[in-house]
Amino acid sequence: MDRAPSGGEVSLKTSHSSLAGRLAQLAQLGATEAGIDRRLFSAADARARELFVQWARGSHYAVEQDRAGNVFARRAGRRDGAAVLSGSHLDTVPTGGAYDGAYGAVAALCALEELDAAGITTEHPVEAVAWAGEEGSRFPLGCLGSGAFAGLNDLAAIDALSDEDGVTFAAARAAANGLLAGVPVRDGFPAPAGYVELHIEQGPVLERCGVRLGNVTAIAGQARFEVEVHGEAGHAGTVPMELRRDALGAAAMLVLELEVAALAIGEAVLTVGRLVVFPNQTNVIPGRVALRVDARSVDEARLTALRTAVEECSARVAAARGVRIETVLIEERRPVAMEPRLRTAVAAAIAELGERAIDLPSGAGHDAMCVAAVAPVAMIFVPSAGGRSHVGNEYTAPEDLQLGVAALTRSIAAIDRLLSKDR
Amino acid sequence: MDRAPSGGEVSLKTSHSSLAGRLAQLAQLGATEAGIDRRLFSAADARARELFVQWARGSHYAVEQDRAGNVFARRAGRRDGAAVLSGSHLDTVPTGGAYDGAYGAVAALCALEELDAAGITTEHPVEAVAWAGEEGSRFPLGCLGSGAFAGLNDLAAIDALSDEDGVTFAAARAAANGLLAGVPVRDGFPAPAGYVELHIEQGPVLERCGVRLGNVTAIAGQARFEVEVHGEAGHAGTVPMELRRDALGAAAMLVLELEVAALAIGEAVLTVGRLVVFPNQTNVIPGRVALRVDARSVDEARLTALRTAVEECSARVAAARGVRIETVLIEERRPVAMEPRLRTAVAAAIAELGERAIDLPSGAGHDAMCVAAVAPVAMIFVPSAGGRSHVGNEYTAPEDLQLGVAALTRSIAAIDRLLSKDR
Repeated sequence: MDRAPSGGEVSLKTSHSSLAGRLAQLAQLGATEAGIDRRLFSAADARARELFVQWARGSHYAVEQDRAGNVFARRAGRRDGAAVLSGSHLDTVPTGGAYDGAYGAVAALCALEELDAAGITTEHPVEAVAWAGEEGSRFPLGCLGSGAFAGLNDLAAIDALSDEDGVTFAAARAAANGLLAGVPVRDGFPAPAGYVELHIEQGPVLERCGVRLGNVTAIAGQARFEVEVHGEAGHAGTVPMELRRDALGAAAMLVLELEVAALAIGEAVLTVGRLVVFPNQTNVIPGRVALRVDARSVDEARLTALRTAVEECSARVAAARGVRIETVLIEERRPVAMEPRLRTAVAAAIAELGERAIDLPSGAGHDAMCVAAVAPVAMIFVPSAGGRSHVGNEYTAPEDLQLGVAALTRSIAAIDRLLSKDR
Repeated sequence: MDRAPSGGEVSLKTSHSSLAGRLAQLAQLGATEAGIDRRLFSAADARARELFVQWARGSHYAVEQDRAGNVFARRAGRRDGAAVLSGSHLDTVPTGGAYDGAYGAVAALCALEELDAAGITTEHPVEAVAWAGEEGSRFPLGCLGSGAFAGLNDLAAIDALSDEDGVTFAAARAAANGLLAGVPVRDGFPAPAGYVELHIEQGPVLERCGVRLGNVTAIAGQARFEVEVHGEAGHAGTVPMELRRDALGAAAMLVLELEVAALAIGEAVLTVGRLVVFPNQTNVIPGRVALRVDARSVDEARLTALRTAVEECSARVAAARGVRIETVLIEERRPVAMEPRLRTAVAAAIAELGERAIDLPSGAGHDAMCVAAVAPVAMIFVPSAGGRSHVGNEYTAPEDLQLGVAALTRSIAAIDRLLSKDR
């Protein structure tokens, strides 16, 4: 077997300007006063995927897309077939930042270019991917693109999903901002040989520890519920307090009970991020409230306890307030451990850079947890200022972003070598 | 002084078909699956005002409108000048019913026609009015039209109000669905001699007492607050529960504390009918919540206690949850007592019908409370099935609606006689 050059030969002079410049260009797409709004198959999202294609083709990589909207850029290896894959997503939450997702997708392209610059030929092809719709902020499904890629979600089921305006995924994909014109569509491609994703931490741990790189141990499992509270609407002036079945009063009680339950379970988080009141008029007692519950833990038993708490709190509040509460589990993902051998390869690559890294879990979900269903995966984190993410002022220092690309490039080379030994 | 015929001479054969038919026609305008959505200066609202004009002109009444969008139909009396006025509003909440407001406006027209049918000549002119924008469901001001009429709100200030799409009142008034084409505009008209408004109760009291007519004693005072809770947005997966400043958690606590405070004050109601979460995404910890508080009591001291409770609860929750809470008093109306002599006239008119009535306060606000600033006022209630109002299935039995028109017609005649004695 031919050996690829060792990680030590990878140039550290990554093209700083292309990383920073590309992220700056992407940050313009969907920019609002409150942050970046780049939902799947919006005009901004389409332009971001076009830029990704343009950059990849500028570096002479073959570009393909699949029917979920994922875009792949391929750098050939000594042999054909399954690739070492790296990337992240280009979509954002409605008031997102410039780094969540975009950084990992651009960094993967930069890593391919670093391999070129260092004259390294890998055994496997190496691919950079821009995953579609990781945030679930348009269609109600997180990790939409990577989930479809890994076969966790059937494309026919995804096609039937509707956004808040009633537009289906199938219709959005076929529209002007859907699949890209002039990019070949890839169907039924083999699973990757391995996957490594670079991402901002989105939490406060690295910054608090004074460390610039994190080697992820596991991604928290997650359960999402759609909850509807059905009370009775009425006139705000004429129905005595004692006779009301106020859906918002019940929802408020539920929000606080769920918070208490999550604190009691520990090493877990629970969020009611979305809540809509009907009819939402000052002088009408709310008749109905729809809300979403997002519960996470890296520990399976705690995740089960969170799910039970959602059901139990809902039943208790319904009884106490004389309302009806429906809970529907709309998404569930088990905790996903990173592959031990890939974690070791990442640790070795970081050590080669003379950098210190810590092992840490990921509270946030990532595309890596879907890819883990079909390939060994690892993840690398860089710090998030103030632990902030999913907000407009999300920030990571340029030197940390650059260090992350260097770690990723070496990790890709190390994983290529590791997986080549397996054959 | 000429005496108008006594109430006993008023025909009881009111045109059942015109009352029911007109209400049915209005119920088509703005009809949705959830009820009736007829906000001020919408196409549905414009068509409702046009129908009112068409019906009034069909009965040969002179029609005028003012610059707030109020429409007046005038039946001449023996002398000119200040009228005995009756009416209500044609706008609805976004999921309203067929009777709240529309009934009182149509009933006033029917009462004018009853006076014609009975061959009664009144001393004062008698006017039927359709008030504009009572519900405050488009522009953030309740009793917009009657408040402008009574000089409580300056038209220049009303002109500057914006709806949720940023359209100002001035722009909406000048647009196609604003003031009606072909209807003369009345400026600076004298205050009415007296005012009587017929309305559905919108509460459960008459139904529970088994009584078909209510003689209103007072209208509850009302205080409305706009409250903003400022927390810190963040990623739903990565920020530990202990470090969060979740704006929705704080808002939930505030909703429940306000409820407890209102129950403790007693003989008062407090409602959070409107609550909006930002950015309202499943995977983002809410950074901001905007809500409206509506507090009411017929007792001045209790109303003061409610206002204090809003401030105190907000301060307590802000401190407990580490968030900032801003409260702005956006509307305030003192309790308004009905005029004792007019109440006596209404009681006598109802007694002439051989009907039993009870005295009861109004928890809901009505245009009458604005008109009370410039004229003596009274109000008559008919029952609401199940106490329901501001909902699509609001209902009052046709025979109760008809009885209300008879009571109104006799009350108008009685008030005309009463006020004529004053001269």
